[in-house]
Amino acid sequence: MKVSRRSRVAPFAVMQILAAANARRDAGESVLNLCAGEPSTGASDVVRQRAAELLRTENLGYTEAMGAPALRRAVATHYERWYGVDVDPSRIAVTTGSSGGFVLAFLASFEVGDRVALARPGYPAYKNILASLGCEVVELDCGPDERYQPTVPRLMEAYYEGGLDGLVLASPANPTGTMVSAAELETLARWCAEHDVRLISDEIYHGITYPGTAAAGAGAAASVPEGSPAGAATAARYLGDGAVVVSSFSKYWAMTGWRLGWLVLPEDLVDPVDALAGNVALCPPALAQHAGVAAFTDEGMAAARENVERYAVSRALLLDRADELGWSPVAPADGAFYLYGNVSRFGLDSVTYCERLLAETGVAITPGTDFDGVAGGDWVRLSFAAAPDVVAAAVDRIVAWQAGLA
Amino acid sequence: MKVSRRSRVAPFAVMQILAAANARRDAGESVLNLCAGEPSTGASDVVRQRAAELLRTENLGYTEAMGAPALRRAVATHYERWYGVDVDPSRIAVTTGSSGGFVLAFLASFEVGDRVALARPGYPAYKNILASLGCEVVELDCGPDERYQPTVPRLMEAYYEGGLDGLVLASPANPTGTMVSAAELETLARWCAEHDVRLISDEIYHGITYPGTAAAGAGAAASVPEGSPAGAATAARYLGDGAVVVSSFSKYWAMTGWRLGWLVLPEDLVDPVDALAGNVALCPPALAQHAGVAAFTDEGMAAARENVERYAVSRALLLDRADELGWSPVAPADGAFYLYGNVSRFGLDSVTYCERLLAETGVAITPGTDFDGVAGGDWVRLSFAAAPDVVAAAVDRIVAWQAGLA
Repeated sequence: MKVSRRSRVAPFAVMQILAAANARRDAGESVLNLCAGEPSTGASDVVRQRAAELLRTENLGYTEAMGAPALRRAVATHYERWYGVDVDPSRIAVTTGSSGGFVLAFLASFEVGDRVALARPGYPAYKNILASLGCEVVELDCGPDERYQPTVPRLMEAYYEGGLDGLVLASPANPTGTMVSAAELETLARWCAEHDVRLISDEIYHGITYPGTAAAGAGAAASVPEGSPAGAATAARYLGDGAVVVSSFSKYWAMTGWRLGWLVLPEDLVDPVDALAGNVALCPPALAQHAGVAAFTDEGMAAARENVERYAVSRALLLDRADELGWSPVAPADGAFYLYGNVSRFGLDSVTYCERLLAETGVAITPGTDFDGVAGGDWVRLSFAAAPDVVAAAVDRIVAWQAGLA
Repeated sequence: MKVSRRSRVAPFAVMQILAAANARRDAGESVLNLCAGEPSTGASDVVRQRAAELLRTENLGYTEAMGAPALRRAVATHYERWYGVDVDPSRIAVTTGSSGGFVLAFLASFEVGDRVALARPGYPAYKNILASLGCEVVELDCGPDERYQPTVPRLMEAYYEGGLDGLVLASPANPTGTMVSAAELETLARWCAEHDVRLISDEIYHGITYPGTAAAGAGAAASVPEGSPAGAATAARYLGDGAVVVSSFSKYWAMTGWRLGWLVLPEDLVDPVDALAGNVALCPPALAQHAGVAAFTDEGMAAARENVERYAVSRALLLDRADELGWSPVAPADGAFYLYGNVSRFGLDSVTYCERLLAETGVAITPGTDFDGVAGGDWVRLSFAAAPDVVAAAVDRIVAWQAGLA
């Protein structure tokens, strides 16, 4: 029987690495897993305790399609606290992870056949979701010279080539960790508004940024209170220009498996997303929503900051040993918890590099082919969301193994 | 800025009824809510306790896109126990509720422009999801004469009119509760296979069926062990013909807000759904998945059966008082927990009927317009998932109120 063309999504190369890593682990061999794009800690105690209480006391039935009112209010307050931006709770749509948010934002914004731009390298689900919904993906070639981020010249090329209906921006980005400054974001948001291009801003790594980086300094608005993380700029400032923010509890709050995210919506998309959400998703997971309110408590925020401090230790360690590691170039890792580097000097394509690295040392990292269909064979991504001692041990093994490749 | 045409989904009329009901309740007035398509009990104690343990001990990170292996095995075993059908766990995709299952099944099966048939009246999300994914919805007019279910003659009309790529079947159906017998299901499945039409079988109300109904008797296979509920036939028997089953923990196991469902897939859709799920959803909620295994324990199954026994009490009460209620015709309510009846003799369109019933008596039910864009103005849906005494009180109020309409 017929299977749709749109379901012909290339499987992720990382899945084979993960399967091989699990097989090694099950065989009792040492594995250092630096593949996964998720914190190793899990949700904070305050969120877990709230969830345990709710399990005892609440029915946990369907919530409103746009999310539980208390959580929508808590997210809106978060925008005031972190960014000094006033967002009405009616503009917040709670979603089933950022994945659910992307599906809703894309469905509400784009028709079948619409052209949507995004940076290459980038998170592969953007293009795979867009393609499955019948949109045309326009990859912008964003290398080291563009700090791996879309620029107005690249957008104009795409625009004059065949029109443009949307732009997916990610800052900090996966896999490169690069950020756009507040000034760059404003330029991109204004260009999009002037050209009737819907800006979809993926901000799921907000909060996972490191003081002292150039982008963090430039992005931090003066109005942001003390204690906010080194700031990535938010597109929530540009709702009036039609921008959409996608965010999540998965990364900063380490709640990956809870499947909880949100959208900040411009006025014209509120009713469409509400109507679509009721049909496509019904509602996000109720327990995660009700417990998720506790993520914004002082205790919840403190736990998240502690995680970021741990990533900062691992990041410093990697940057200290960058010469020794010998990946070149490496993306700046201004935010998120990934080191994306070019390993072509070692003479192996990245899939072979990762397969052999795992087989010969037990270190699992991700081939760049999952993020870049053109140049990804030269690149690899190492996740430093793992504990610092695991990251240090992995660097030891990688350096020793690379020395033997000559 | 542009908003997509595909996001122009008609809002559900029930949302206005619910808002009015909540306003009444907040004003301290009595409300009997028979709108909601969800059990009032919530998950069983064994599932809640398992979840509470997991909150203490587990990281609750991402699972495999197709779901946690233990839950896939438990679902597969359930098919052996309930239906005597041997399903390999690799054929089970755990999904984020049946909503997530429909999105994946439709994406994997249908192209933009494909024609997919479904019964009118029916659950509105089928057609709204299909339309949002660019498919053409072909409504089959299925009235009392067809017991509100698709028939081969209706399918052939659609097929010769413009080709047909899919059929969504629901048994027991929402809002009518009608079921297709095992023989009817076989006929439909064979017709679909012969005509290269993908059968998508919504079985989320399986288990919520009532002994003694004609369809239950005909559907129960001899091989099904003692203790199984009066059986709706499963399309899992027709995986070899390309059929897809959609099911859920929401209804029988009363876990609506947990957002947990599953697909049983024919071989050709296993890899496509795996690849799509990793992009569109990443994975279903981890806590719900791990705790959901407990739904299949003896204790979990016993709790579900108790809920069904309570619905059976309410259903018997409604059928006893059917003449008094005076809705005619009423759909048979062989399964699920809805009474769908024609109220045109009372001289009000169903939206007005429901608005006035709520305003004048505090009883909230759903206008048929949500389920049937043609004849729904004559019909209403009453959910008897509420407690029997609530259902009894509601009937008292409806009967008295209708008497005053003359």
